[in-house]
Amino acid sequence: MPRIDAKRLIGDLETLRGFGATGTGTGVVRPSLSPVDMASREWLVARMTEAGLDAAIDGVGSVFGRSRNAGKALVIGSHSDTQPRGGWLDGAMGVIYAIEIARALAEDPATRHLAVDCISLIDEEGTYCGFLGSLSFCDMLDAEAIAGAVNRDGHRLADAIAEAGLDGRPRARLEPDRHVAYLEAHIEQGAILEDTGKRIGVVTGIVGNRGYQIDFTGQQNHAGTTPMPKRRDAGVALVDFANRLHAAFAEIAGPLTVWTVGGITLDPGAMSIIPGRAEMILQCRDHDDTRLDALEARAHELVAEANARGPVAVAFAARGEPAAPVPMDDGLQAHLTAAAEAALPGGWMAMPSGAGHDAQVMATVLPSAMLFVPSIGGVSHDFAEDTAEDDIVLGCQVLCDAAASILGDLS
Amino acid sequence: MPRIDAKRLIGDLETLRGFGATGTGTGVVRPSLSPVDMASREWLVARMTEAGLDAAIDGVGSVFGRSRNAGKALVIGSHSDTQPRGGWLDGAMGVIYAIEIARALAEDPATRHLAVDCISLIDEEGTYCGFLGSLSFCDMLDAEAIAGAVNRDGHRLADAIAEAGLDGRPRARLEPDRHVAYLEAHIEQGAILEDTGKRIGVVTGIVGNRGYQIDFTGQQNHAGTTPMPKRRDAGVALVDFANRLHAAFAEIAGPLTVWTVGGITLDPGAMSIIPGRAEMILQCRDHDDTRLDALEARAHELVAEANARGPVAVAFAARGEPAAPVPMDDGLQAHLTAAAEAALPGGWMAMPSGAGHDAQVMATVLPSAMLFVPSIGGVSHDFAEDTAEDDIVLGCQVLCDAAASILGDLS
Repeated sequence: MPRIDAKRLIGDLETLRGFGATGTGTGVVRPSLSPVDMASREWLVARMTEAGLDAAIDGVGSVFGRSRNAGKALVIGSHSDTQPRGGWLDGAMGVIYAIEIARALAEDPATRHLAVDCISLIDEEGTYCGFLGSLSFCDMLDAEAIAGAVNRDGHRLADAIAEAGLDGRPRARLEPDRHVAYLEAHIEQGAILEDTGKRIGVVTGIVGNRGYQIDFTGQQNHAGTTPMPKRRDAGVALVDFANRLHAAFAEIAGPLTVWTVGGITLDPGAMSIIPGRAEMILQCRDHDDTRLDALEARAHELVAEANARGPVAVAFAARGEPAAPVPMDDGLQAHLTAAAEAALPGGWMAMPSGAGHDAQVMATVLPSAMLFVPSIGGVSHDFAEDTAEDDIVLGCQVLCDAAASILGDLS
Repeated sequence: MPRIDAKRLIGDLETLRGFGATGTGTGVVRPSLSPVDMASREWLVARMTEAGLDAAIDGVGSVFGRSRNAGKALVIGSHSDTQPRGGWLDGAMGVIYAIEIARALAEDPATRHLAVDCISLIDEEGTYCGFLGSLSFCDMLDAEAIAGAVNRDGHRLADAIAEAGLDGRPRARLEPDRHVAYLEAHIEQGAILEDTGKRIGVVTGIVGNRGYQIDFTGQQNHAGTTPMPKRRDAGVALVDFANRLHAAFAEIAGPLTVWTVGGITLDPGAMSIIPGRAEMILQCRDHDDTRLDALEARAHELVAEANARGPVAVAFAARGEPAAPVPMDDGLQAHLTAAAEAALPGGWMAMPSGAGHDAQVMATVLPSAMLFVPSIGGVSHDFAEDTAEDDIVLGCQVLCDAAASILGDLS
């Protein structure tokens, strides 16, 4: 069996961290298409080329390294862009795993004929357009989506692509006759593995995700001269509604359902003024779409009840694109499970992904699977994000074993 | 009895509205010490001078018009600065009432010997320092308060005073041997008069006012990967606390108690992130200080209960300076009541002021009283603020009659 080189793997991860590192910790600031991100992509191209791949940055910024081996191929990778305040492993680990696995297979005479194409998919984090790289790879990208995309400073994606010198470059695309599966490793970003003492997660599916905005319209007024019975306080209505929603959702939630009121705004938000308008943003996630339907239906009932009660008007609307739950491929999960059990008997678990990943896009056109390693303290999207080195190494070996086994089954 | 001149009164109010008017409505933007506010003060000086007063802008910007008559004098006035989006009557009406009353008394042989000093107290609305004019008049102004005061753009009060050409000017001050009382008329800024069909309010006192900030500290985390039982969501804790507070306060509130959660902030306030911190600002007002004590004690209990329950830490702190309830002078109220009853039998009512006024500062050194006229729809601090012309005229005549009666009793 091919063996990954732990020192080379960790060394490459540390080098990649140097692009956008923040001091001596594990923090990284490497938003997609920024100068430091583009420099890291040039380095990834060089590393993939050294590994024997035909590598280039494509027309949207993804780095694709194609194996020169013929026959059926795996696509392995993740993303290497970061959140505005990100860590060194979120995405980056899966990209370096791919390169290390290509190297390990090439160094073993028994597997050197197997084809692994490596990819760093651009902008999974949505600096301009979430999942840009995977949508482009799967030919699911809307030309209007690119034309209209801007970052939080209003900078246009089309300008960022031109400034990065990518205009006119071909885009890496799925090759239906060649590509048989997509494998992505990622940090868990939660604490389920840590809490249960497991070191590998075999992902069963990526949860669905629906966002909502709930608006409350009352009457702005002077906080000193308006008696309580005369008030139509949008903030009072909002906190009452939010409390009822938390209680109602707890009754119908499954063990893996999560919901979050991430934002509340009162307008105008002053000490001496009764809020005339208020807004809350709500997100629900579950691996079961019928449960997301049930939560949404319950929210609609609560809105109707609030409007019947008055005196504040409540309006409920979707916010952002809903994402349906995406199951991972059963056959690929079986290979990951077998590899994990062989490497660490009883030390792995099957689990859903609560976060979104490129694999949810890839899975719509290609059998896909994911492997998780533990996040220390469950922390991610933060400079403090980290994973034990032993877990990083173990995860790469398990994914390598599974890749060899998947490709071996085909021949 | 002296008669006010309705046409002259309304004409002066309309002229004053022209300083900072916003289009054809009743809106006015005339923040204190702004160029348009200073121009209006020059006009007030001219109008007071025409009325036979010795008038000038003082060292902080207040306009003081001193009667040339000897003997005991009333101070009558209000403020003529506005909110950032204000109306034409909030403050301005009380200043023009004062000038009209001085003119009406001077035109009547029976009252032309009576002394009424007119004042427009600067910055009641707190563009730089709330109640600046009345604090200065009462010699309660802290030199450090002036030195440190800035407006919302960071412009210093001391610079604004210098730019207005006021450096070195004397400040108008209370004259203890001369001044016997302060009278202030104002729009109600609520809808109690309108709702009860009364046209004059005799103010019994100005309510006390306490502000608080309540901070919730939990743990920020990923909204997709953190199971519900593991969360320490500061926003969930805040809405639960706010709901309990509204219910608990309703149990101990008196008929005139009001409380307002004017602002809520979740940090970082994003769709996909569990809020790690949350803040709410709370204000309580009542005419009874012991009830304000009871509300504050109940809030402390709720904070202790929330901290005992966990998992989010709650901290409670005062925000801004508390203002104690200020009763209006009984003898002056009797004069206002008699004048109102004579003018409009049964058409007036005694009522507290829910909003703060310069009279609450003046009352600490001088017997003070206030008269309210109805606000249409209870609206104030808004371009739509207005009062029926008949009510404006009636209020001025009643205040004039009371002024003549108060001064007459002294001679």
